[in-house]
Amino acid sequence: MAATDPCFSHADEHLAWLQSQARLPQGFRVGSTKVSFVSAETGKPAESTLTLISLDQPSPVSAGVFTRNAFPGAPVRIGRERLQAPLWSTIVINNKVSNVCAPEGEARSRALCAAVARQLGVDESAVVPCSTGVIGWRLPAAELINALPTAIASLQSATILPAAQGIVTTDLYPKIRRRDFSGGGSIVGIAKGAGMIEPNLATMLVYLLTDISIPREVLRQLLQESADDSFNCISVDSDESTSDTLLALSSQRVTGVSTETFAEALRGVCQELAEDVVRNGEGVRHVQRVRVCGAPSRELARGVGKAVVNSPLWKTALAGNDPNVGRLVAAVGKYLGRHHPDCPVEKTRIHLGDAEIFSGGQFTLDPVTEAQLKKLLEHTELYPAKPAADGITFVPPLRFPSHPRVVPITIDLGHGDAWVEVVGGDLTHEYITENADYRS
Amino acid sequence: MAATDPCFSHADEHLAWLQSQARLPQGFRVGSTKVSFVSAETGKPAESTLTLISLDQPSPVSAGVFTRNAFPGAPVRIGRERLQAPLWSTIVINNKVSNVCAPEGEARSRALCAAVARQLGVDESAVVPCSTGVIGWRLPAAELINALPTAIASLQSATILPAAQGIVTTDLYPKIRRRDFSGGGSIVGIAKGAGMIEPNLATMLVYLLTDISIPREVLRQLLQESADDSFNCISVDSDESTSDTLLALSSQRVTGVSTETFAEALRGVCQELAEDVVRNGEGVRHVQRVRVCGAPSRELARGVGKAVVNSPLWKTALAGNDPNVGRLVAAVGKYLGRHHPDCPVEKTRIHLGDAEIFSGGQFTLDPVTEAQLKKLLEHTELYPAKPAADGITFVPPLRFPSHPRVVPITIDLGHGDAWVEVVGGDLTHEYITENADYRS
Repeated sequence: MAATDPCFSHADEHLAWLQSQARLPQGFRVGSTKVSFVSAETGKPAESTLTLISLDQPSPVSAGVFTRNAFPGAPVRIGRERLQAPLWSTIVINNKVSNVCAPEGEARSRALCAAVARQLGVDESAVVPCSTGVIGWRLPAAELINALPTAIASLQSATILPAAQGIVTTDLYPKIRRRDFSGGGSIVGIAKGAGMIEPNLATMLVYLLTDISIPREVLRQLLQESADDSFNCISVDSDESTSDTLLALSSQRVTGVSTETFAEALRGVCQELAEDVVRNGEGVRHVQRVRVCGAPSRELARGVGKAVVNSPLWKTALAGNDPNVGRLVAAVGKYLGRHHPDCPVEKTRIHLGDAEIFSGGQFTLDPVTEAQLKKLLEHTELYPAKPAADGITFVPPLRFPSHPRVVPITIDLGHGDAWVEVVGGDLTHEYITENADYRS
Repeated sequence: MAATDPCFSHADEHLAWLQSQARLPQGFRVGSTKVSFVSAETGKPAESTLTLISLDQPSPVSAGVFTRNAFPGAPVRIGRERLQAPLWSTIVINNKVSNVCAPEGEARSRALCAAVARQLGVDESAVVPCSTGVIGWRLPAAELINALPTAIASLQSATILPAAQGIVTTDLYPKIRRRDFSGGGSIVGIAKGAGMIEPNLATMLVYLLTDISIPREVLRQLLQESADDSFNCISVDSDESTSDTLLALSSQRVTGVSTETFAEALRGVCQELAEDVVRNGEGVRHVQRVRVCGAPSRELARGVGKAVVNSPLWKTALAGNDPNVGRLVAAVGKYLGRHHPDCPVEKTRIHLGDAEIFSGGQFTLDPVTEAQLKKLLEHTELYPAKPAADGITFVPPLRFPSHPRVVPITIDLGHGDAWVEVVGGDLTHEYITENADYRS
């Protein structure tokens, strides 16, 4: 979220802003519907949302990046196949069940795709499936197929909001970002994701729709680069999903936008959505943006940044507005000690906000700095911690982003020119409550 | 903790058991005293415990393994030097301040060693310093030196308990483990550590004292091997400390124990202390013991095991007695996807307790298994979660280990002969409470 983003004090202000972002590019329609089923694994009832994103005319200009997890979901396996298909028409998405390593996983996903293809009059290879939710549960394919006519009847070309709302699971709010080009045309993107977020070359569920005409191979190259600068630089909880999927699709309606202009817009949308995902991360009450510079390689810089945003102790200190910066430095040292033991640590300089906290191999701390850091953490808190009403169940009091502030951290290794920015959260009671019994 | 360990229902039962483990080997004395000081970094008062472990006669048979963190504490730097010293006499330990990258860190630590040496009449190079606590704070050397005469006056040769109690920080209880040899002589070990625990070739603060005569180089070799099989196979929160230190020291009073017998006893003490550290880990309410077998290498097996015990989502599910095994498999898949993408995942078999949950590339789940798994998690819980009295501050209701049970997990990769056992905890409200404002 850029620093100029508005603050919201009510959910309806946030919804109005989302609606202002939600206009679909030319040539797309979206729709969704709820589906009830019973989990075969627990015997309990559950509910999924079935979402469709559909092109008016199938298009060859598609791109996808997927999780590197060794146990990918059935939709990821099928999605990789679809990269070879000549045309894409429709993305069919369900939440609640991720269809990962479940019995009949691919067969059920393909049956759903075939039903979509039949009812929309397109080739099955033009239908791309995506699932998110509990890992290990069977896809309720029959129930989803029964609901298809309702979802198709709901397709409309005005707004992407129903899709942004339909794909969420533990997200507090839908995430939409857009860029409009001066000569007409746009990119609009939506994202789902709040937990199990440390993408590796892809992320969560993200859909980028555009009407800008651009060659397929260029879109694929740009998508990979944008992912590397955005979703591959975030972590909520260091858990890489089995279902991370990032898809881009063009209806090719608008010509005349240069590749450079398009690439910059695409990267911007990706970076904003990536930060939205962290800002809405499970239980997140502080967003930290860690700039690692002066590094011998981008890979090393990213490793250091990830080590910081994934340190449970540093994250817990942030949650408590406690500037326990020793934990921040310990996290940097853990990574360097394992991966770059020859790094000249006496050259490392670290700032938290405007305050230098470490330089020349030593901490530079005093009570004045301590007070300044504490104020920074309080100022960047998304919402204050509140005692749980029943003493154990912590629920965020807000379901919208109250402000766009981050905890800015700069780590200059003084040992090269490479740099990266990594974005992560803190670790809170709200995260524990959210995840201690997620499935019920 | 071995499966035959006793259960405790009262703290005094646990204390009596600790006392039964605490007899010092011949030739050692320990003592401790409290020290008050004011933190130069926050301006607030604080308290440290100063502990001495001393040989009656300096001995050449010493060994030490230290953290690989790139920002090691001053005592770690000095301790590495001391490995070259001909004789060791005394280990001087303080808690509350870890003396890591603090101004005058080495100078203050050396001043303390010099004072100890002077007052005990030994060479300064025979005094080994250790510090644990807040990272970044200056060592209150003057206050510690002032307290030395009191600590020296408290030295006694009966029990290691005052040292086991003196070195703790957030530990709920002291940790002592021993082996007695049939022909006389013993090894006794103590450990401190509850958070910032994912040692890399060393651990926390651990001291192993023995009166068994053994060559120095043999002890050093055995200590390294024992650490690899114990402390390097645990994680509480994936945060590697800047101060991990494992020291072993022999008074050489007892001869006639074979190297094999000694090695087995040393490994046993290390493994029990390592599991104690996890069992007493910050906020830990379940201990998981992950056996990874059928692996192409021990390194890979350890990586998979660490990925499981470090997965926040799997740990949080454990905390909630929620057998959300999809998260367990996702953690395995994250590691394999990044480090061994060619692993034939269809050969992987995973058990949780006695129940197979994954085989042939698919989950094997049903409501009966679900109920069985839920029962296992409830049975292995160290203490039940209780609402916080003030709605936010979660405090463990027990300060002793109530039972020795673990959550047993077996991951057979079906792809080699290497194996390892990794021990970790869960992730709870108690961990968040403990760490959100640790320093105050």
